[in-house]
This record gives sequence, C-alpha cells and structure tokens, in this order.
Amino acid sequence: MSDFSRQFLVHWNDCDPAGIVFHAHYIRWMDEGFTDMTRARGVDFAALAAEDPHFRGSPLVDVRCGFRAPARFADVLEHRIAPPVFGAGRSYRLLHRFLLPDGRLAAEGEQTRIWGRDEGEGLRAVPMPPEIAARLAEG
Amino acid sequence: MSDFSRQFLVHWNDCDPAGIVFHAHYIRWMDEGFTDMTRARGVDFAALAAEDPHFRGSPLVDVRCGFRAPARFADVLEHRIAPPVFGAGRSYRLLHRFLLPDGRLAAEGEQTRIWGRDEGEGLRAVPMPPEIAARLAEG
Amino acid sequence: MSDFSRQFLVHWNDCDPAGIVFHAHYIRWMDEGFTDMTRARGVDFAALAAEDPHFRGSPLVDVRCGFRAPARFADVLEHRIAPPVFGAGRSYRLLHRFLLPDGRLAAEGEQTRIWGRDEGEGLRAVPMPPEIAARLAEG
Amino acid sequence: MSDFSRQFLVHWNDCDPAGIVFHAHYIRWMDEGFTDMTRARGVDFAALAAEDPHFRGSPLVDVRCGFRAPARFADVLEHRIAPPVFGAGRSYRLLHRFLLPDGRLAAEGEQTRIWGRDEGEGLRAVPMPPEIAARLAEG
Repeated sequence: MSDFSRQFLVHWNDCDPAGIVFHAHYIRWMDEGFTDMTRARGVDFAALAAEDPHFRGSPLVDVRCGFRAPARFADVLEHRIAPPVFGAGRSYRLLHRFLLPDGRLAAEGEQTRIWGRDEGEGLRAVPMPPEIAARLAEG
Repeated sequence: MSDFSRQFLVHWNDCDPAGIVFHAHYIRWMDEGFTDMTRARGVDFAALAAEDPHFRGSPLVDVRCGFRAPARFADVLEHRIAPPVFGAGRSYRLLHRFLLPDGRLAAEGEQTRIWGRDEGEGLRAVPMPPEIAARLAEG
Repeated sequence: MSDFSRQFLVHWNDCDPAGIVFHAHYIRWMDEGFTDMTRARGVDFAALAAEDPHFRGSPLVDVRCGFRAPARFADVLEHRIAPPVFGAGRSYRLLHRFLLPDGRLAAEGEQTRIWGRDEGEGLRAVPMPPEIAARLAEG
Repeated sequence: MSDFSRQFLVHWNDCDPAGIVFHAHYIRWMDEGFTDMTRARGVDFAALAAEDPHFRGSPLVDVRCGFRAPARFADVLEHRIAPPVFGAGRSYRLLHRFLLPDGRLAAEGEQTRIWGRDEGEGLRAVPMPPEIAARLAEG
C-alpha cells in the first residue's frame, strides 16, 4: 500500500486578493487528484461504464478540508493521496495532503465516496469490486 | 429592442492577487448573463429540448472580450446585453458590457452563437425560429 | 437570531457531465454566501480593515460539506446560513444548508472561521468584537 | 522561433452537462499556458518585480477564442502557443491552439498583452525588454 503522489503549479487564477490559494480550489484538486490516481492505477471509469450500463462511477458523498498554511502563486505543491480506507458501511475514505515546497502542510482533506450503481431506482452504494480495491491500494 | 440588464456582486474568489477580477470570469459571466436574459425573456431551453429532441441549444462558437478598467472585490457590476444581431450567415452576435459602480466600462465582449440541431450527423446551425428571435429582441 | 437566506440560479457551468452540480461549487457558494450575509447584516470588512491595519478578515480554517441530493441546471437553490456558533476556542462555526426547489436538502456544510489579525508575527485568531458578533447573530 | 507546447488532462469539472469542455476553461488555460511558457523560457515575473518595483507583469488587454470541435472528459489536450507577435503599438499577441488526441483542432485563441509598469499614475504599456522578447521567442 502506497500513497499516490502528483505535483502541480499554483496558477495566478487559483489565488485571491490576499495572495493565497482560494480554499475551494483544494476541493477541486482533491477530485482531480482522485481521477489522476485512478488512471495511474489502471482503473478506467469509462471502460467500467461500458461494461456495466448501471455503473455510476464513484460519487463523492462528503468532503472536508483543513487549511494549515497558505500556498501562493507559482508554488509547486505536492499532492499525496493515501490508499482508500474501507469502513463498516459501503463508503470509503481517501485522505489527501497538500505539501508546500518547504515540506510544510498547506492543507489536509478527506473525501468520502461510494461505488455507485443505478438500476433505475436511483443511485445506490454497492461494494467496490475487490480487484478495483486492490488496484487502488497497491499503487 | 432593449438591452437586458442585470447586476451582481464581485466575490472574493473572482479576484486575483492583483486585487482585480481575473479575466476568465467575464467569459463565464457572459454565459450566465445569456442564460438570465433568455429566462427573463421567456425562452425556455429545457422546454424547447422537450419539444424537439434534435434541439441542441444555442452553442457558443466564438467569444472575445476586451478589458478596459479593473473591477474589484465587492464592486456591484452592471452587465448589459444588447439584443442579438443577425448577420448574413446562421450565427448571431451578442454584445456584452460590464459597467463599474461609477459608470466606467470594465469590460466589453461579444459572443457568437448558433441555434443548434443534431439529427444524428453532428451539430449544425439552423435559423433561429422567428418567435424566439422576437422574444430575445424585444425585452 | 435568524438564518440568513439567499436564492440563486444554478448555471450551466456549475454542472458536470452527469448533469448535476459539481461539488466544489458548494464550497465556493458557502464563501460567497458568507460575504452576502456579512454585507446584509452591516459588517463591512473593507471599513474594518481601514480602521485597523492589522485586521485580516475572517479566514476559513476548516470546511466540510455533505451532498444529499443532486441539484441541476436552472434549479433555483435556497441557501440558508445559521448565525455563528461560538465554542470554547477562538474559532466559530457557520452551518449552511442548500435547499432544492421542492424543499429537499441538496447539501449541508459547515465552515470554521477565525477573526484574524496580524501584527507582524503572522496571522492569529482574536476574539470577534461583540458588536460584530451581535450583528451577525441578529439578522 | 518555436512553439511552446504542453499537455494536460481534461478533468470532470471542466466539462458541462453536454459532456464537453465549458468554453471559459479555454480562456483560463490560455492564461495558465502563458505562465508555463514564461517559466519554461526563463522569464521570472517574481524576480522582475523584485528588480523593478514599478513592474506590473504582462496584463491581458484583449482575448478571443473560437471553438472548433468539442473536447471531453479524460481527453489529453495538446496546447501550443506560438512566439509573441509584436505589432506597431506596444501590445503583443500570442496565438494559442488546443489539439484533440486525434490531432483535430478543439479551439484556437489569441491573447493581446502589454508589458506593464505603474509609476504611480496608473498602469501603462512599455516596450518589452529585448532580452525578454528574445527568450519568449526562442524557446
């Protein structure tokens, strides 16, 4: 089990008049990072949807984020995502950390997602297929 | 024929580290203003799509915007949209102006849109129905 | 003590290929709603900063949001913000609810904010002045 | 003289309910690409501002974009920016092209920028220093 890691540049439009990243961008980056993580680990949502017409992806049901130190324009952030944590229910959690160039924590967040299917009666959570869980966990 | 006008507040996240509106938001606001204009003038895209399954809305094919004076956090902008201008072809143009609280021009832009249908061979421009054009023009 | 309430239209660009609001927009809307609430209740951050050059606004330190039912293009959402809740520490919490046109809950979130000052040694939380707290609470 | 090129993934939140990229993101991507281009070619705006306190970066004064073919979620776009074109006045133009995975043109746009200084009488355009122009042109 290993973290997924990616790096990206903070762009001008990510920052507000205080000169720091506007917080909602971290929420967007968590979603983009999840996409990047699934792709890097061979989980192809388009292919899954083609195989199973009832598959509805892995919707977010809850998100939180704490902001620890400001990131600024032109900082290169490291975004680390821990392997999914499965609990008693059918949702799973993903921990995200954003690190500044000097290694300090800029923000840490958590997504709660489900594996979604809809057989015509509305979206519901189903267990994530074990082979998918294994791919997301192993890196 | 009269302009459509709406007012809105510039929010913190619309502004960049220079303390002014980041330019791409004007492009977004032009689109949102077009939606508000069509609704205010009784053009209901959802109803049109329900009546005609081949209808594909009024896609943007070209946009431009010039930035004249900076708008800042908490400014209330007036957004004025002139009635559509129909040319020789099947596209039409919408002129947008954004006015600062003191009346100066913050930005002026232009959208080129088509009336879109797709009968299975890809999106193409068709003439806007005269009753729609009349509604958009009269205000 | 009364909730602050505002209404707004879900725009096309707020929605994703599933046809529903992309979640990060709720985080942005919470921030915009806080601005609207402070303005409606006579709390003027620009004036406060002019009076006290060390004032740094009311930064967000933590945010969470749960997504209960999808909102779609052209829905008019009601956004309700409860009066600030002050705890043992120096932060305060704001509860946000987003209601669909049929009254169902689309999303509910919580912001944790501080009242910020910086006398040259970095941002720190100070108690919110009682007259400000009273204004935000009373509506 | 050579184009600057970068590649990036279209994310879920870049796309609208029609399943295609919402147009305003191209305007944002042009700005982000300009930042990436200047960095790749050794033009450091932060260092320039430190050397010259009156320097105000290279503000956008006009932008246009035409949309030729839709890009979709998970497409990897190639973004090409041609070297700056200097005209008779003090502004310069940058041509941007966005190419789909199959090589077709998704969008093509143009930014008009100035080299900005403000000595206390407001932003004005000054000639771009020749060594900067040379760096941006050569690649």
